[in-house]
Amino acid sequence: MDHIIELTKQIKSDSFLMANLSGEVRNQALSKIAQALLSNRDQILEANQLDLDRGIDAKLSSPIMKRLKFDDQKLSDVVDGIQSLLSLKDPLWTKLLERELDDQLKLYKVTCPIGVIGVIFESRPDALVQIASLCLKSGNCAILKGGSEAAHTNKVLFEIIHKAGVEAGIPEGFLTLIENRADINELLKCHESIDLLIPRGSNEFVQYIMEHSKIPVMGHADGICHIFADKDADPDKAIPIIVDAKTQYVAACNTVETLLVHRDVAETLLPAVKEALEKKDVIIRGCERTREIISCETSEEKDFETEYLDYIISVKVIDSLEDAIFHINKYGSHHTDSIITENSEAAEKFMLLVDSAGVYQNCSTRFADGFRYGFGAEVGISTGKLHARGPVGLDGLVTYKYKLYGNGQIVADYAEGRSSFKFKDL
Amino acid sequence: MDHIIELTKQIKSDSFLMANLSGEVRNQALSKIAQALLSNRDQILEANQLDLDRGIDAKLSSPIMKRLKFDDQKLSDVVDGIQSLLSLKDPLWTKLLERELDDQLKLYKVTCPIGVIGVIFESRPDALVQIASLCLKSGNCAILKGGSEAAHTNKVLFEIIHKAGVEAGIPEGFLTLIENRADINELLKCHESIDLLIPRGSNEFVQYIMEHSKIPVMGHADGICHIFADKDADPDKAIPIIVDAKTQYVAACNTVETLLVHRDVAETLLPAVKEALEKKDVIIRGCERTREIISCETSEEKDFETEYLDYIISVKVIDSLEDAIFHINKYGSHHTDSIITENSEAAEKFMLLVDSAGVYQNCSTRFADGFRYGFGAEVGISTGKLHARGPVGLDGLVTYKYKLYGNGQIVADYAEGRSSFKFKDL
Repeated sequence: MDHIIELTKQIKSDSFLMANLSGEVRNQALSKIAQALLSNRDQILEANQLDLDRGIDAKLSSPIMKRLKFDDQKLSDVVDGIQSLLSLKDPLWTKLLERELDDQLKLYKVTCPIGVIGVIFESRPDALVQIASLCLKSGNCAILKGGSEAAHTNKVLFEIIHKAGVEAGIPEGFLTLIENRADINELLKCHESIDLLIPRGSNEFVQYIMEHSKIPVMGHADGICHIFADKDADPDKAIPIIVDAKTQYVAACNTVETLLVHRDVAETLLPAVKEALEKKDVIIRGCERTREIISCETSEEKDFETEYLDYIISVKVIDSLEDAIFHINKYGSHHTDSIITENSEAAEKFMLLVDSAGVYQNCSTRFADGFRYGFGAEVGISTGKLHARGPVGLDGLVTYKYKLYGNGQIVADYAEGRSSFKFKDL
Repeated sequence: MDHIIELTKQIKSDSFLMANLSGEVRNQALSKIAQALLSNRDQILEANQLDLDRGIDAKLSSPIMKRLKFDDQKLSDVVDGIQSLLSLKDPLWTKLLERELDDQLKLYKVTCPIGVIGVIFESRPDALVQIASLCLKSGNCAILKGGSEAAHTNKVLFEIIHKAGVEAGIPEGFLTLIENRADINELLKCHESIDLLIPRGSNEFVQYIMEHSKIPVMGHADGICHIFADKDADPDKAIPIIVDAKTQYVAACNTVETLLVHRDVAETLLPAVKEALEKKDVIIRGCERTREIISCETSEEKDFETEYLDYIISVKVIDSLEDAIFHINKYGSHHTDSIITENSEAAEKFMLLVDSAGVYQNCSTRFADGFRYGFGAEVGISTGKLHARGPVGLDGLVTYKYKLYGNGQIVADYAEGRSSFKFKDL
């Protein structure tokens, strides 16, 4: 425990030095990291083979094995990711406000790094590279804890990135890998040194972190996403979108879990939905009104509160747009919800009143992703409303400070009427 | 307890309706509230007299009595505050990003209300009016709990504002006054209905709230603000700034608690500081090197961690700008810190490396205030780094959502190379 407290204190003090690095230095380091990853290809793939072998022995499921695998394609993807980060504007020191409060009293609101960010992530080793490079680009120190299945790959990736970064002039503390699972509980206590925690994993895990730490947490609970097929839905759009949102990657948080169908289109749409989904081996759990139109399993109330992460979808026939909005706000997880409609008034109402990070019209919920939004990459998706919402890229990794330049001004002069504010935005 | 859970659920459901009100309707309601406050002047002042009488019986201290008083001047101030809010731009539905991901696939990032905000505030009844009007302007529902000393005044102010708001077409749930202190603990459990808590009060109270609720908290712990008189400090600026920052309002969180003096100017500056502060009855607690130059009480390490909120200041002589930055980052509360220097390089370094919400040059720390920043008013000051930092006005009371308009797009087409993203900012 003392070890972790001391370690995070040292990282905190390095974080102040990070604020001192120019965008050019941070970009040069990212370039060197990309080169180092490419030139250490063999070492990375060998380490990954160790993890894969161990995964086979441990009889890991095929989706986990797929996520664990780090091959030439993944290497090329993470290096492309770094290249795209290089081309993005420096997120630091942007002036958000520039205001003359009075003569020779100028206020600036400027973006700056958050400081020290702890990220606990799942078995994908490519996530390590993405998170490390996003944090470096935004001037933050990152403390990472990856999944134990990927321990060998993570260690090698960490060592390559850390060495290249330090050689490029970045402080030692910019990146730290925590290898011991027990150290997570110690990290949770370090609210004086760690500014933000981003847990990526199961809902239970995220809730555990929130309850056991005073450090602010950014993340998502469940991903219970909806598609609402409105009375003005175009079936030619609805069917492919529903199939994509359910089956394109079934274990993702932005996968649809509940389909709401307006009663006016239920009779025509539901048989086509059933046919298309059953081709993909999706099990349908329908409400009573759904089962009057198609044969399927029965849905219960708890289905509407469940993130299946599986080839299962719950279906409910509803009476109106308002009922759909009500259902989504009640049962959803405020992640991403899509309306299929040709009626733009209905779409606007849905987007205004559905209280979710992403509100879509006529497209798949699977678009909720930092890369697909053009952020280069993401550190995660937030279903909270404070600070950052939805896919979190560089913008979510900065905060701001107020700089006030004066020439001897005191508040008493303003409070007692000898001076008055001008408030002129520049 | 059930009462509070049901109440907050009802407020949550009204909060969705708030998002549906135009900026014009919200402004009209604010105008009506201002009128109603003016035309109910007598009733407000009578209620306040009851609180003041009770305060005298309870032997409340003179600063508390001063804060409790709601007279014609305070009435005029809060009405002016509402007028200035009226003139501020609508904080809702601002486009923060507008991006074509592909043909007919447009992403918008737009500001929207947070939802339901709970504010627990101190004895100043004018705070009730400020918070209620900021929340209404930003489309949020507010649940307020004021200090019990001001119970009569708060109740009357609440009733006037609530009646005027509802008459102007705002949903009933836009404003709720909690009168029973025991209900605070029940509020803390309502993380499904309340989106944000803003506790204003002692550090212990804020910490208690943070530890006992899963609701995100925005607020400030201590306000341990510093002034650093650099070697290039102009004494003609330094002395009035130090006096103002310490004595202009001694019980405020942006009042200076520690003065750091560069060794090169200590001999000339400290005697003048002592003379000026002692005229205002400020007690100086100095480090050993300070006491070699002026006679004063002795400071101990714990002084540097103390928010006095009193006519006391700790003084330390230090060797360099770097040492000053180190001291502030170690002992400060990341609120507001000011450097007195004519050297702009030193000022820039101080502003870059001091990890505080406000970093100032040559002016008083007392400027850290929403009104003085031109925000119209503030709901509080945040020393956290997430979401909002420093004085929190309308900008801190909104979040955003992503709206994505498509025409049938599915992710599989992009994942399998049949389509590719264009990422064109509009």
